[in-house]
Amino acid sequence: MQERILSSQLKDFIGKKIKLEGWLYKKRELGGMTFLVLRDRHGLTQILDDKSSETEKLKGLHQGTVLTVLGMVVEEKRAPNGVEIHNPKITIDMPVTEVPPIEIDKPLSHDSENLDTLFEYRVIGLRNVQEGKIFKIRAGLERYIRDFLNKNEFIEINTPKILAGATEGGAEVFKVDYFGKEAVLAQSPQFYKQIMVGVFERVFEIAPAYRAETSATTRHVSEVTMLDIEMGFISGHQDVLDMVQDMTYHALTSAYEEFKDELKSLNAPQLVLKNKFPIFTVAQVHEMYSKATGKSTEHEKDLVPDEEKWICEHAKKEKGCEAVFVTEFPVQAMKFYHKINPADPSTVMWADLLFRGIEIATCPQRENNYKKLVEQMVKAGLDPEHPGYKYYLQAFKFGLPAHGGCGFGIDRFVEKTIGLNNVKEAILFPRDLNRLTP
Amino acid sequence: MQERILSSQLKDFIGKKIKLEGWLYKKRELGGMTFLVLRDRHGLTQILDDKSSETEKLKGLHQGTVLTVLGMVVEEKRAPNGVEIHNPKITIDMPVTEVPPIEIDKPLSHDSENLDTLFEYRVIGLRNVQEGKIFKIRAGLERYIRDFLNKNEFIEINTPKILAGATEGGAEVFKVDYFGKEAVLAQSPQFYKQIMVGVFERVFEIAPAYRAETSATTRHVSEVTMLDIEMGFISGHQDVLDMVQDMTYHALTSAYEEFKDELKSLNAPQLVLKNKFPIFTVAQVHEMYSKATGKSTEHEKDLVPDEEKWICEHAKKEKGCEAVFVTEFPVQAMKFYHKINPADPSTVMWADLLFRGIEIATCPQRENNYKKLVEQMVKAGLDPEHPGYKYYLQAFKFGLPAHGGCGFGIDRFVEKTIGLNNVKEAILFPRDLNRLTP
Repeated sequence: MQERILSSQLKDFIGKKIKLEGWLYKKRELGGMTFLVLRDRHGLTQILDDKSSETEKLKGLHQGTVLTVLGMVVEEKRAPNGVEIHNPKITIDMPVTEVPPIEIDKPLSHDSENLDTLFEYRVIGLRNVQEGKIFKIRAGLERYIRDFLNKNEFIEINTPKILAGATEGGAEVFKVDYFGKEAVLAQSPQFYKQIMVGVFERVFEIAPAYRAETSATTRHVSEVTMLDIEMGFISGHQDVLDMVQDMTYHALTSAYEEFKDELKSLNAPQLVLKNKFPIFTVAQVHEMYSKATGKSTEHEKDLVPDEEKWICEHAKKEKGCEAVFVTEFPVQAMKFYHKINPADPSTVMWADLLFRGIEIATCPQRENNYKKLVEQMVKAGLDPEHPGYKYYLQAFKFGLPAHGGCGFGIDRFVEKTIGLNNVKEAILFPRDLNRLTP
Repeated sequence: MQERILSSQLKDFIGKKIKLEGWLYKKRELGGMTFLVLRDRHGLTQILDDKSSETEKLKGLHQGTVLTVLGMVVEEKRAPNGVEIHNPKITIDMPVTEVPPIEIDKPLSHDSENLDTLFEYRVIGLRNVQEGKIFKIRAGLERYIRDFLNKNEFIEINTPKILAGATEGGAEVFKVDYFGKEAVLAQSPQFYKQIMVGVFERVFEIAPAYRAETSATTRHVSEVTMLDIEMGFISGHQDVLDMVQDMTYHALTSAYEEFKDELKSLNAPQLVLKNKFPIFTVAQVHEMYSKATGKSTEHEKDLVPDEEKWICEHAKKEKGCEAVFVTEFPVQAMKFYHKINPADPSTVMWADLLFRGIEIATCPQRENNYKKLVEQMVKAGLDPEHPGYKYYLQAFKFGLPAHGGCGFGIDRFVEKTIGLNNVKEAILFPRDLNRLTP
């Protein structure tokens, strides 16, 4: 049996007879000749049937039909990969006899008013080669992140997503019927990754997390993929920032190299990055933004969305880097497990990583003193005696070193890397308030 | 600030003053001298305080106390890593003032009657260095699996775990309250990985899957980590088996090399493996087993657990390989999406990978003809019009090539690689009928 050749390999087979397998992507007739385009996992191939005799077999068949094509590879600069297949012999491996609901050989609209259609026909729409590139790049970014973390001795863990309740707070939770008991879906592996610092010092997980988001924005979905990292025996908060910075730099520069052509064809922005990300405090951003725009934000405890955009633009222009750390968030915004800045108790040792206008990761140091942590829980109105906190607090009672980490939104990172407008476009099958399918 | 040295690096610093950071693992006094053992992410270090003066600071403090130790590295063959720290200067970074509920410097019992205790104190118990090794090896196996799949052009995907219902059948499902609508937790990414064959040909995912298992066995938990793989444009079922075989061989041989010492200290079995796994049909196994044991299983549609053990033992002894494929399962046992063997319609193109006595992966070829698939659904009593199947069936209606893949149980694979007795021992924080914490 003749070996299958992939579209990207054809330029090495000019003048040879080869076998292709793939999906019918396009068919057009032109002056008695028929041009086919075949899709395989590496891309597209143009096939010319100059007498339209062999392509007769495709009568009544549609886009998606699975074909085997035997033919001669001929140089043709105007065709994909610079080659064309002549004198095709076609076998139909699986016919498509119905007209598909969308035409995937044309660009799919990502306009906000068309997103519902995009997701309704996602199963077929992802076969559009441009859509596919988004998720190849996504897999690449995840791969480069893992490479970096593995090399730096972070151990990948798998933590439970069904919890007894009492999570770290924040967005609403989804409830699960667990053998008649009420349980909840994890909003993050926060407690577990901190517990695991006591075991391995350095851990990470890339896994789904669940937020019952009742607001429909371009930033929110109810099922996200989070990269969670935690590292112990840090000598200070800066260690956490350095690690997140180096990882992000590695993933972005590597992906921009590997997927140069794909990113270009997706109109992704040029990457403007330094290997040291600029750092600003929240107070500095408020001041700079207020001065530059005339809109005062100095009473805000967090950054407002427009400030996030502004500071990234500013850093890109002035510092040559569109990734920025913002530090020293006010204590009013803190979560109970954050560490208050000993040098200035009105601020928290919490930094956000912003990239191209939005927060990609939150990177705080944690309070690792058991007694202080319990005090902070009580102050936050939580009950340290609640059974859901029992195991988490054990880790501290029996010794945790100084540690910090990040919750890093993979979906948002992919969205911004590619230059999409809505986080859902970076998710294969997104879930939100109104969408539970496909 | 002096740089931290890890336990495994000390042998390169003999005669030098170094800084260690870690957890107090053990303390014992002997003739006026005090021996400490410190744990860090690379292992254990012995520290000798020959006048017991510096270790006075540890009075009233317990295992888990976080310490910084400055001292001199001295060769000492009987100590871990062949070195001992003399003349220690100790700083207490985080004191542990309560006696821990379990002593982690002693081996933890994994006897079945003690498993509940093991998991109840899991947060602390994982700090036992032997327990830690299990999960380092687990991370290593996952890493080698990903390496293999990335190298072979499988794209890693992230698919939704909250579904609208109508899954592929099998075990019971957990119900989720999804904004007032009833949804279910995914039992597997079966439908999504098949859909994604239409996009990328080759995909995989390592992610949690949920089975509301009401039986309490050594094999079952309600949250598992599954490796799901799917590959399209296969030339036959054998392509799937070859891929699973090569991946498993790569992961096992690489992990047995990297974690040689850890596996030895965990009393893991010697690896007996060939790069071509023996293949037997279900009928052959029934026949061989019945002949060898006198117990007839020829009326069984599936393998009975004792047969799975027997065939692995047999293959180990006779073929030098303790991983085995069993093929040609009877059609009575099939799922609706399996492909019936065209050469013998009483059997299905479905193989199980058995390793050390249990099924690790199920590796069938799928029915990729839309009409046949719908027929098989109806025959299985399912309604192809159910909205939960709509998107899955779209993928077939608009063209899927011949494909197959596997659901590969990461937890079981870790369990058997290390030689544990219960799948829960291979899971950081297992979930079952009775356990939803820690």
